Amino acid sequence: MSHEFQGRFLGVLGGMGPMAGAAFMARLIALTPAPSEQLHIPAILWNDPRVPDRPAGYTKHGPDPYPWMLNGIRLLERSGAMAIAIPCNTAHLWYERLAAATDLPVLHIVQAVIDDLHRQGIHSGRIGLMGTAVTLKLRLYQNALQEQGYECITPADDEMATSCIPSIMHVKANRLDEAYAPASDCVRLLQKQGADAVVFGCTELPLAIPHALRAQLDVPITDSIDALALAAIQWYQSGI
Amino acid sequence: MSHEFQGRFLGVLGGMGPMAGAAFMARLIALTPAPSEQLHIPAILWNDPRVPDRPAGYTKHGPDPYPWMLNGIRLLERSGAMAIAIPCNTAHLWYERLAAATDLPVLHIVQAVIDDLHRQGIHSGRIGLMGTAVTLKLRLYQNALQEQGYECITPADDEMATSCIPSIMHVKANRLDEAYAPASDCVRLLQKQGADAVVFGCTELPLAIPHALRAQLDVPITDSIDALALAAIQWYQSGI
Repeated sequence: MSHEFQGRFLGVLGGMGPMAGAAFMARLIALTPAPSEQLHIPAILWNDPRVPDRPAGYTKHGPDPYPWMLNGIRLLERSGAMAIAIPCNTAHLWYERLAAATDLPVLHIVQAVIDDLHRQGIHSGRIGLMGTAVTLKLRLYQNALQEQGYECITPADDEMATSCIPSIMHVKANRLDEAYAPASDCVRLLQKQGADAVVFGCTELPLAIPHALRAQLDVPITDSIDALALAAIQWYQSGI
Repeated sequence: MSHEFQGRFLGVLGGMGPMAGAAFMARLIALTPAPSEQLHIPAILWNDPRVPDRPAGYTKHGPDPYPWMLNGIRLLERSGAMAIAIPCNTAHLWYERLAAATDLPVLHIVQAVIDDLHRQGIHSGRIGLMGTAVTLKLRLYQNALQEQGYECITPADDEMATSCIPSIMHVKANRLDEAYAPASDCVRLLQKQGADAVVFGCTELPLAIPHALRAQLDVPITDSIDALALAAIQWYQSGI
Protein backbone atom coordinates (compact mmCIF):
# COMPACT_ATOMS: atom_id res chain seq x y z
CA MET A 1 0.00 0.00 0.00
CA SER A 2 1.41 3.38 -0.94
CA HIS A 3 2.39 5.66 1.92
CA GLU A 4 -0.31 8.22 1.26
CA PHE A 5 -3.05 5.68 1.89
CA GLN A 6 -1.72 4.64 5.30
CA GLY A 7 -3.22 5.81 8.57
CA ARG A 8 -5.61 4.75 11.29
CA PHE A 9 -8.36 2.53 9.92
CA LEU A 10 -11.24 1.02 11.86
CA GLY A 11 -12.29 -2.53 11.04
CA VAL A 12 -15.93 -3.39 11.61
CA LEU A 13 -16.93 -7.04 11.93
CA GLY A 14 -20.56 -6.69 10.89
CA GLY A 15 -23.21 -8.90 9.35
CA MET A 16 -24.63 -9.86 12.75
CA GLY A 17 -27.21 -8.79 11.63
CA PRO A 18 -26.40 -6.98 8.40
CA MET A 19 -28.62 -3.98 9.25
CA ALA A 20 -26.85 -3.54 12.59
CA GLY A 21 -23.56 -3.36 10.68
CA ALA A 22 -24.91 -0.68 8.35
CA ALA A 23 -26.51 1.21 11.25
CA PHE A 24 -23.22 1.18 13.14
CA MET A 25 -21.47 2.79 10.15
CA ALA A 26 -24.16 5.47 9.89
CA ARG A 27 -24.01 6.27 13.60
CA LEU A 28 -20.18 6.29 13.56
CA ILE A 29 -20.37 9.05 10.95
CA ALA A 30 -23.27 10.92 12.57
CA LEU A 31 -21.50 10.99 15.94
CA THR A 32 -18.06 12.00 14.61
CA PRO A 33 -17.47 15.73 14.98
CA ALA A 34 -15.85 16.24 11.56
CA PRO A 35 -15.93 19.66 9.91
CA SER A 36 -15.42 18.12 6.47
CA GLU A 37 -16.10 14.83 4.74
CA GLN A 38 -12.41 13.98 4.44
CA LEU A 39 -11.91 14.18 8.23
CA HIS A 40 -14.26 11.29 9.02
CA ILE A 41 -12.88 8.00 10.30
CA PRO A 42 -11.57 5.66 7.60
CA ALA A 43 -13.40 2.39 8.14
CA ILE A 44 -14.04 -0.93 6.49
CA LEU A 45 -17.19 -2.93 7.14
CA TRP A 46 -17.10 -6.68 6.59
CA ASN A 47 -20.83 -7.38 6.40
CA ASP A 48 -21.16 -11.12 5.87
CA PRO A 49 -24.65 -12.05 7.04
CA ARG A 50 -24.00 -15.77 6.57
CA VAL A 51 -22.49 -16.00 10.07
CA PRO A 52 -24.69 -18.62 11.73
CA ASP A 53 -27.15 -17.48 14.39
CA ARG A 54 -25.19 -16.60 17.55
CA PRO A 55 -27.72 -17.63 20.24
CA ALA A 56 -28.28 -21.02 18.55
CA GLY A 57 -24.53 -21.52 18.06
CA TYR A 58 -23.60 -20.66 21.62
CA THR A 59 -26.12 -23.08 23.04
CA LYS A 60 -25.03 -25.79 20.54
CA HIS A 61 -28.43 -25.81 18.88
CA GLY A 62 -26.93 -24.66 15.59
CA PRO A 63 -23.66 -24.39 13.66
CA ASP A 64 -20.69 -22.63 15.26
CA PRO A 65 -20.42 -18.97 14.22
CA TYR A 66 -16.86 -18.62 15.57
CA PRO A 67 -14.98 -19.67 12.38
CA TRP A 68 -17.03 -17.11 10.42
CA MET A 69 -16.19 -14.33 12.86
CA LEU A 70 -12.52 -15.29 12.77
CA ASN A 71 -12.62 -15.26 8.95
CA GLY A 72 -13.94 -11.70 9.12
CA ILE A 73 -11.24 -10.63 11.56
CA ARG A 74 -8.53 -12.09 9.32
CA LEU A 75 -9.94 -10.14 6.37
CA LEU A 76 -9.99 -6.93 8.40
CA GLU A 77 -6.39 -7.50 9.51
CA ARG A 78 -5.28 -8.00 5.89
CA SER A 79 -7.16 -4.84 4.88
CA GLY A 80 -5.12 -2.65 7.19
CA ALA A 81 -7.56 -2.26 10.08
CA MET A 82 -5.86 -1.12 13.28
CA ALA A 83 -8.72 -1.83 15.71
CA ILE A 84 -11.89 -3.89 15.54
CA ALA A 85 -15.46 -3.08 16.53
CA ILE A 86 -18.12 -5.80 16.55
CA PRO A 87 -21.65 -4.36 16.41
CA CYS A 88 -23.33 -7.46 17.83
CA ASN A 89 -23.76 -7.99 21.55
CA THR A 90 -24.26 -11.76 21.45
CA ALA A 91 -21.01 -12.12 19.46
CA HIS A 92 -19.27 -10.77 22.57
CA LEU A 93 -19.87 -14.13 24.23
CA TRP A 94 -16.85 -15.11 22.06
CA TYR A 95 -14.95 -11.92 22.92
CA GLU A 96 -12.06 -13.55 24.78
CA ARG A 97 -11.40 -16.09 22.01
CA LEU A 98 -11.61 -13.41 19.29
CA ALA A 99 -9.41 -10.93 21.16
CA ALA A 100 -6.81 -13.66 21.81
CA ALA A 101 -6.79 -14.60 18.11
CA THR A 102 -5.67 -11.17 16.87
CA ASP A 103 -2.98 -8.64 17.74
CA LEU A 104 -5.40 -5.80 17.04
CA PRO A 105 -7.29 -4.13 19.90
CA VAL A 106 -10.92 -5.29 19.91
CA LEU A 107 -13.32 -2.77 21.45
CA HIS A 108 -15.71 -4.35 23.99
CA ILE A 109 -19.35 -3.38 23.57
CA VAL A 110 -20.16 -3.83 27.29
CA GLN A 111 -17.33 -1.52 28.33
CA ALA A 112 -18.58 0.95 25.72
CA VAL A 113 -22.07 0.83 27.28
CA ILE A 114 -20.66 1.39 30.78
CA ASP A 115 -18.65 4.36 29.47
CA ASP A 116 -21.84 5.72 27.92
CA LEU A 117 -23.76 5.39 31.21
CA HIS A 118 -20.98 7.40 32.87
CA ARG A 119 -21.08 9.94 30.02
CA GLN A 120 -24.80 10.37 30.74
CA GLY A 121 -24.06 10.93 34.42
CA ILE A 122 -25.51 7.58 35.51
CA HIS A 123 -22.97 6.20 38.00
CA SER A 124 -25.24 3.98 40.09
CA GLY A 125 -28.80 2.74 40.35
CA ARG A 126 -30.95 0.12 38.68
CA ILE A 127 -30.20 -0.67 35.05
CA GLY A 128 -32.85 -2.41 32.95
CA LEU A 129 -31.31 -4.76 30.40
CA MET A 130 -32.73 -5.74 27.03
CA GLY A 131 -31.03 -8.23 24.73
CA THR A 132 -31.21 -11.75 23.34
CA ALA A 133 -32.15 -14.45 25.85
CA VAL A 134 -28.67 -15.98 25.74
CA THR A 135 -26.96 -12.61 26.31
CA LEU A 136 -29.08 -12.03 29.40
CA LYS A 137 -28.92 -15.65 30.69
CA LEU A 138 -25.12 -15.76 30.38
CA ARG A 139 -24.88 -12.43 32.22
CA LEU A 140 -22.78 -10.68 29.53
CA TYR A 141 -23.83 -7.33 30.99
CA GLN A 142 -24.79 -8.18 34.55
CA ASN A 143 -21.36 -9.19 35.82
CA ALA A 144 -19.63 -6.10 34.43
CA LEU A 145 -22.36 -3.70 35.57
CA GLN A 146 -22.50 -5.17 39.09
CA GLU A 147 -18.72 -4.82 39.40
CA GLN A 148 -19.26 -1.11 38.72
CA GLY A 149 -21.86 -0.88 41.47
CA TYR A 150 -25.02 -0.98 39.36
CA GLU A 151 -28.02 -3.18 40.11
CA CYS A 152 -29.43 -5.05 37.07
CA ILE A 153 -32.96 -6.02 36.19
CA THR A 154 -34.05 -8.10 33.22
CA PRO A 155 -37.45 -8.96 31.76
CA ALA A 156 -39.05 -12.17 33.08
CA ASP A 157 -39.19 -15.12 30.66
CA ASP A 158 -42.80 -14.42 29.67
CA GLU A 159 -41.98 -10.73 29.18
CA MET A 160 -39.02 -11.66 26.97
CA ALA A 161 -41.30 -13.88 24.87
CA THR A 162 -43.89 -11.17 24.27
CA SER A 163 -41.76 -8.03 24.02
CA CYS A 164 -37.99 -8.14 23.70
CA ILE A 165 -37.59 -11.22 21.49
CA PRO A 166 -40.35 -10.36 18.98
CA SER A 167 -38.93 -6.87 18.53
CA ILE A 168 -35.45 -8.27 17.73
CA MET A 169 -37.00 -10.80 15.32
CA HIS A 170 -38.98 -8.07 13.50
CA VAL A 171 -35.79 -6.06 12.92
CA LYS A 172 -33.93 -9.13 11.68
CA ALA A 173 -36.78 -9.73 9.21
CA ASN A 174 -36.71 -6.10 8.01
CA ARG A 175 -40.08 -5.30 9.61
CA LEU A 176 -38.90 -2.18 11.44
CA ASP A 177 -42.40 -0.71 11.74
CA GLU A 178 -43.62 -3.72 13.68
CA ALA A 179 -40.61 -3.74 15.99
CA TYR A 180 -41.42 -0.54 17.87
CA ALA A 181 -44.48 -1.70 19.82
CA PRO A 182 -42.96 -4.78 21.50
CA ALA A 183 -39.63 -2.99 22.11
CA SER A 184 -41.31 -0.02 23.79
CA ASP A 185 -43.49 -2.42 25.83
CA CYS A 186 -40.29 -3.95 27.17
CA VAL A 187 -38.84 -0.54 28.08
CA ARG A 188 -42.05 0.26 30.00
CA LEU A 189 -41.99 -3.08 31.83
CA LEU A 190 -38.45 -2.32 33.01
CA GLN A 191 -39.43 1.22 34.00
CA LYS A 192 -42.28 -0.18 36.13
CA GLN A 193 -39.70 -2.31 37.93
CA GLY A 194 -37.79 0.84 38.80
CA ALA A 195 -35.17 1.03 36.05
CA ASP A 196 -33.18 4.29 36.25
CA ALA A 197 -31.87 3.65 32.73
CA VAL A 198 -32.40 1.02 30.04
CA VAL A 199 -29.63 -0.61 27.98
CA PHE A 200 -30.37 -1.67 24.40
CA GLY A 201 -28.01 -4.63 24.74
CA CYS A 202 -28.71 -6.06 21.29
CA THR A 203 -27.76 -4.13 18.16
CA GLU A 204 -31.18 -4.79 16.62
CA LEU A 205 -32.97 -2.83 19.38
CA PRO A 206 -31.73 0.68 18.43
CA LEU A 207 -33.39 0.09 15.05
CA ALA A 208 -36.67 -0.87 16.73
CA ILE A 209 -36.81 2.41 18.68
CA PRO A 210 -35.34 5.18 16.49
CA HIS A 211 -33.73 8.18 18.16
CA ALA A 212 -36.65 10.47 17.33
CA LEU A 213 -39.02 8.34 19.43
CA ARG A 214 -36.84 7.96 22.51
CA ALA A 215 -37.71 11.17 24.35
CA GLN A 216 -41.27 9.95 24.85
CA LEU A 217 -40.01 6.85 26.69
CA ASP A 218 -39.12 9.08 29.65
CA VAL A 219 -36.16 7.00 30.83
CA PRO A 220 -32.48 7.41 29.87
CA ILE A 221 -31.45 4.95 27.14
CA THR A 222 -27.99 3.60 26.45
CA ASP A 223 -27.88 2.31 22.93
CA SER A 224 -25.14 -0.26 22.35
CA ILE A 225 -24.64 0.81 18.70
CA ASP A 226 -24.12 4.45 19.66
CA ALA A 227 -21.98 3.47 22.64
CA LEU A 228 -19.72 1.33 20.45
CA ALA A 229 -19.50 4.10 17.84
CA LEU A 230 -18.46 6.57 20.54
CA ALA A 231 -15.82 4.09 21.78
CA ALA A 232 -14.51 3.79 18.20
CA ILE A 233 -14.33 7.57 17.85
CA GLN A 234 -12.43 7.73 21.15
CA TRP A 235 -10.02 5.03 19.91
CA TYR A 236 -9.47 6.96 16.67
CA GLN A 237 -8.89 10.28 18.41
CA SER A 238 -6.60 8.80 21.07
CA GLY A 239 -4.01 7.96 18.42
CA ILE A 240 -2.85 4.85 20.30
CA MET B 1 -10.00 -18.79 2.22
CA SER B 2 -11.78 -21.97 3.25
CA HIS B 3 -14.39 -23.29 0.84
CA GLU B 4 -17.30 -22.67 3.17
CA PHE B 5 -16.66 -18.91 3.14
CA GLN B 6 -16.69 -18.63 -0.65
CA GLY B 7 -19.61 -17.30 -2.62
CA ARG B 8 -20.89 -14.15 -4.26
CA PHE B 9 -19.69 -11.04 -2.46
CA LEU B 10 -20.49 -7.45 -3.32
CA GLY B 11 -17.71 -4.88 -3.01
CA VAL B 12 -18.79 -1.34 -2.21
CA LEU B 13 -16.40 1.52 -2.93
CA GLY B 14 -17.77 4.02 -0.42
CA GLY B 15 -16.48 6.99 1.52
CA MET B 16 -17.71 9.46 -1.12
CA GLY B 17 -19.17 10.69 1.19
CA PRO B 18 -18.96 8.30 4.12
CA MET B 19 -22.67 8.67 4.99
CA ALA B 20 -23.67 7.78 1.42
CA GLY B 21 -21.63 4.57 1.80
CA ALA B 22 -23.41 3.68 5.04
CA ALA B 23 -26.80 4.62 3.59
CA PHE B 24 -26.17 2.43 0.55
CA MET B 25 -25.50 -0.55 2.83
CA ALA B 26 -28.70 0.11 4.82
CA ARG B 27 -30.82 0.43 1.66
CA LEU B 28 -29.21 -2.68 0.14
CA ILE B 29 -30.42 -4.64 3.15
CA ALA B 30 -33.83 -2.93 3.38
CA LEU B 31 -34.55 -3.61 -0.31
CA THR B 32 -33.35 -7.24 -0.32
CA PRO B 33 -36.27 -9.65 -0.02
CA ALA B 34 -34.60 -12.04 2.43
CA PRO B 35 -36.70 -14.21 4.73
CA SER B 36 -33.81 -14.60 7.18
CA GLU B 37 -30.73 -12.67 8.19
CA GLN B 38 -28.37 -15.26 6.73
CA LEU B 39 -29.89 -14.88 3.24
CA HIS B 40 -28.88 -11.23 2.84
CA ILE B 41 -26.17 -10.28 0.37
CA PRO B 42 -22.59 -10.69 1.65
CA ALA B 43 -20.96 -7.32 1.17
CA ILE B 44 -17.86 -5.39 2.09
CA LEU B 45 -17.85 -1.62 2.36
CA TRP B 46 -14.54 0.20 1.91
CA ASN B 47 -15.47 3.53 3.47
CA ASP B 48 -12.37 5.71 3.18
CA PRO B 49 -13.57 9.31 3.40
CA ARG B 50 -10.09 10.70 2.66
CA VAL B 51 -10.73 10.42 -1.12
CA PRO B 52 -10.23 14.01 -2.26
CA ASP B 53 -13.28 16.00 -3.31
CA ARG B 54 -14.48 14.71 -6.70
CA PRO B 55 -15.83 17.93 -8.24
CA ALA B 56 -12.62 19.82 -7.33
CA GLY B 57 -10.44 16.95 -8.56
CA TYR B 58 -12.22 16.55 -11.88
CA THR B 59 -11.91 20.25 -12.67
CA LYS B 60 -8.23 20.23 -11.57
CA HIS B 61 -8.95 22.60 -8.68
CA GLY B 62 -7.90 20.01 -6.14
CA PRO B 63 -5.94 16.75 -5.74
CA ASP B 64 -6.78 13.79 -7.97
CA PRO B 65 -9.19 11.34 -6.30
CA TYR B 66 -8.54 8.59 -8.88
CA PRO B 67 -5.58 6.91 -7.09
CA TRP B 68 -7.70 6.70 -3.93
CA MET B 69 -10.59 5.10 -5.77
CA LEU B 70 -8.23 2.62 -7.44
CA ASN B 71 -6.71 1.79 -4.03
CA GLY B 72 -10.22 0.97 -2.79
CA ILE B 73 -10.95 -1.21 -5.81
CA ARG B 74 -7.72 -3.15 -5.31
CA LEU B 75 -8.65 -3.75 -1.67
CA LEU B 76 -12.11 -4.96 -2.68
CA GLU B 77 -10.59 -7.30 -5.28
CA ARG B 78 -8.22 -8.79 -2.69
CA SER B 79 -11.14 -9.20 -0.26
CA GLY B 80 -13.01 -11.49 -2.63
CA ALA B 81 -15.54 -9.05 -4.06
CA MET B 82 -17.08 -10.29 -7.31
CA ALA B 83 -18.71 -7.03 -8.43
CA ILE B 84 -18.32 -3.41 -7.44
CA ALA B 85 -20.88 -0.73 -6.65
CA ILE B 86 -19.82 2.90 -6.19
CA PRO B 87 -22.41 4.93 -4.26
CA CYS B 88 -21.20 8.31 -5.55
CA ASN B 89 -22.49 9.83 -8.78
CA THR B 90 -19.61 12.24 -9.36
CA ALA B 91 -17.13 9.36 -9.05
CA HIS B 92 -18.79 7.94 -12.18
CA LEU B 93 -17.01 10.64 -14.19
CA TRP B 94 -14.04 8.23 -13.78
CA TYR B 95 -16.19 5.16 -14.56
CA GLU B 96 -14.43 4.14 -17.79
CA ARG B 97 -10.96 4.33 -16.21
CA LEU B 98 -12.08 2.42 -13.11
CA ALA B 99 -13.93 -0.25 -15.07
CA ALA B 100 -10.90 -0.72 -17.36
CA ALA B 101 -8.62 -1.10 -14.34
CA THR B 102 -10.39 -4.16 -12.92
CA ASP B 103 -11.65 -7.49 -14.19
CA LEU B 104 -14.68 -7.24 -11.91
CA PRO B 105 -17.99 -5.95 -13.23
CA VAL B 106 -18.59 -2.39 -12.02
CA LEU B 107 -22.27 -1.45 -11.78
CA HIS B 108 -23.05 1.93 -13.39
CA ILE B 109 -25.21 4.24 -11.29
CA VAL B 110 -26.72 6.03 -14.32
CA GLN B 111 -27.81 2.73 -15.87
CA ALA B 112 -29.26 1.79 -12.47
CA VAL B 113 -31.28 5.03 -12.42
CA ILE B 114 -32.58 4.42 -15.97
CA ASP B 115 -33.59 0.89 -14.94
CA ASP B 116 -35.38 2.36 -11.94
CA LEU B 117 -37.29 4.87 -14.10
CA HIS B 118 -38.43 1.93 -16.25
CA ARG B 119 -39.33 -0.03 -13.11
CA GLN B 120 -41.55 2.89 -12.07
CA GLY B 121 -43.23 2.87 -15.50
CA ILE B 122 -41.58 6.11 -16.65
CA HIS B 123 -40.44 5.40 -20.21
CA SER B 124 -40.46 8.93 -21.64
CA GLY B 125 -41.05 12.55 -20.67
CA ARG B 126 -39.16 15.30 -18.95
CA ILE B 127 -36.69 14.26 -16.24
CA GLY B 128 -35.53 16.84 -13.69
CA LEU B 129 -31.93 16.26 -12.65
CA MET B 130 -30.33 17.13 -9.33
CA GLY B 131 -26.65 16.57 -8.61
CA THR B 132 -23.32 18.30 -8.14
CA ALA B 133 -22.57 21.12 -10.59
CA VAL B 134 -19.83 19.10 -12.29
CA THR B 135 -22.06 16.03 -12.72
CA LEU B 136 -24.71 18.17 -14.41
CA LYS B 137 -22.26 20.29 -16.46
CA LEU B 138 -20.45 17.22 -17.78
CA ARG B 139 -23.81 15.65 -18.72
CA LEU B 140 -23.21 12.39 -16.82
CA TYR B 141 -26.97 11.77 -16.87
CA GLN B 142 -28.16 13.85 -19.82
CA ASN B 143 -26.44 11.91 -22.59
CA ALA B 144 -27.63 8.52 -21.36
CA LEU B 145 -31.18 9.71 -20.66
CA GLN B 146 -31.51 11.43 -24.04
CA GLU B 147 -30.33 8.27 -25.79
CA GLN B 148 -33.27 6.53 -24.10
CA GLY B 149 -35.70 9.16 -25.39
CA TYR B 150 -36.06 11.27 -22.25
CA GLU B 151 -35.84 15.05 -22.18
CA CYS B 152 -33.68 16.48 -19.38
CA ILE B 153 -34.00 19.65 -17.37
CA THR B 154 -31.55 20.96 -14.79
CA PRO B 155 -31.68 23.83 -12.29
CA ALA B 156 -30.32 27.16 -13.55
CA ASP B 157 -26.99 28.29 -12.05
CA ASP B 158 -28.66 30.59 -9.50
CA GLU B 159 -31.10 27.82 -8.55
CA MET B 160 -28.18 25.41 -8.07
CA ALA B 161 -26.48 27.95 -5.80
CA THR B 162 -29.51 28.43 -3.55
CA SER B 163 -31.05 24.95 -3.48
CA CYS B 164 -29.23 21.90 -4.79
CA ILE B 165 -25.66 22.72 -3.75
CA PRO B 166 -26.48 23.89 -0.18
CA SER B 167 -28.52 20.75 0.44
CA ILE B 168 -25.59 18.52 -0.64
CA MET B 169 -23.20 20.55 1.53
CA HIS B 170 -25.48 20.25 4.58
CA VAL B 171 -25.51 16.46 4.24
CA LYS B 172 -21.74 16.31 3.84
CA ALA B 173 -21.42 18.36 7.05
CA ASN B 174 -23.83 16.05 8.95
CA ARG B 175 -26.56 18.72 9.13
CA LEU B 176 -29.34 16.50 7.77
CA ASP B 177 -32.13 18.60 9.30
CA GLU B 178 -31.02 21.68 7.39
CA ALA B 179 -30.68 19.80 4.11
CA TYR B 180 -34.39 19.17 3.55
CA ALA B 181 -35.55 22.74 2.84
CA PRO B 182 -33.12 23.56 0.00
CA ALA B 183 -33.43 20.07 -1.49
CA SER B 184 -37.22 20.21 -1.56
CA ASP B 185 -37.03 23.75 -3.02
CA CYS B 186 -35.01 22.30 -5.89
CA VAL B 187 -37.54 19.51 -6.48
CA ARG B 188 -40.33 22.12 -6.65
CA LEU B 189 -38.36 24.31 -9.08
CA LEU B 190 -37.98 21.34 -11.41
CA GLN B 191 -41.66 20.45 -11.03
CA LYS B 192 -42.63 24.00 -12.06
CA GLN B 193 -40.56 23.50 -15.20
CA GLY B 194 -42.64 20.46 -16.00
CA ALA B 195 -40.55 17.58 -14.64
CA ASP B 196 -42.43 14.26 -14.89
CA ALA B 197 -39.91 12.72 -12.49
CA VAL B 198 -36.90 13.93 -10.51
CA VAL B 199 -33.57 12.08 -10.26
CA PHE B 200 -31.55 12.41 -7.04
CA GLY B 201 -28.30 12.19 -9.01
CA CYS B 202 -26.01 12.72 -6.04
CA THR B 203 -25.87 10.15 -3.22
CA GLU B 204 -26.15 12.90 -0.60
CA LEU B 205 -29.62 13.95 -1.82
CA PRO B 206 -31.52 10.82 -0.69
CA LEU B 207 -30.35 11.68 2.84
CA ALA B 208 -31.65 15.25 2.50
CA ILE B 209 -35.16 14.05 1.63
CA PRO B 210 -35.89 10.85 3.58
CA HIS B 211 -38.32 8.32 2.14
CA ALA B 212 -41.06 9.23 4.64
CA LEU B 213 -41.21 12.80 3.28
CA ARG B 214 -41.25 11.98 -0.44
CA ALA B 215 -44.96 11.36 -0.94
CA GLN B 216 -45.70 15.03 -0.17
CA LEU B 217 -43.42 16.12 -3.04
CA ASP B 218 -46.07 14.89 -5.47
CA VAL B 219 -43.64 13.91 -8.25
CA PRO B 220 -42.03 10.50 -8.83
CA ILE B 221 -38.48 10.35 -7.44
CA THR B 222 -35.65 8.12 -8.59
CA ASP B 223 -33.10 7.90 -5.84
CA SER B 224 -29.62 6.93 -7.08
CA ILE B 225 -28.78 5.10 -3.82
CA ASP B 226 -31.90 2.93 -4.03
CA ALA B 227 -31.44 2.44 -7.78
CA LEU B 228 -27.85 1.25 -7.28
CA ALA B 229 -28.92 -1.03 -4.42
CA LEU B 230 -31.60 -2.58 -6.66
CA ALA B 231 -28.99 -3.07 -9.40
CA ALA B 232 -26.72 -4.80 -6.89
CA ILE B 233 -29.55 -7.08 -5.77
CA GLN B 234 -30.26 -7.93 -9.42
CA TRP B 235 -26.55 -8.72 -9.96
CA TYR B 236 -26.55 -10.95 -6.89
CA GLN B 237 -29.70 -12.80 -7.87
CA SER B 238 -28.63 -13.24 -11.51
CA GLY B 239 -25.77 -15.50 -10.46
CA ILE B 240 -23.55 -14.29 -13.32
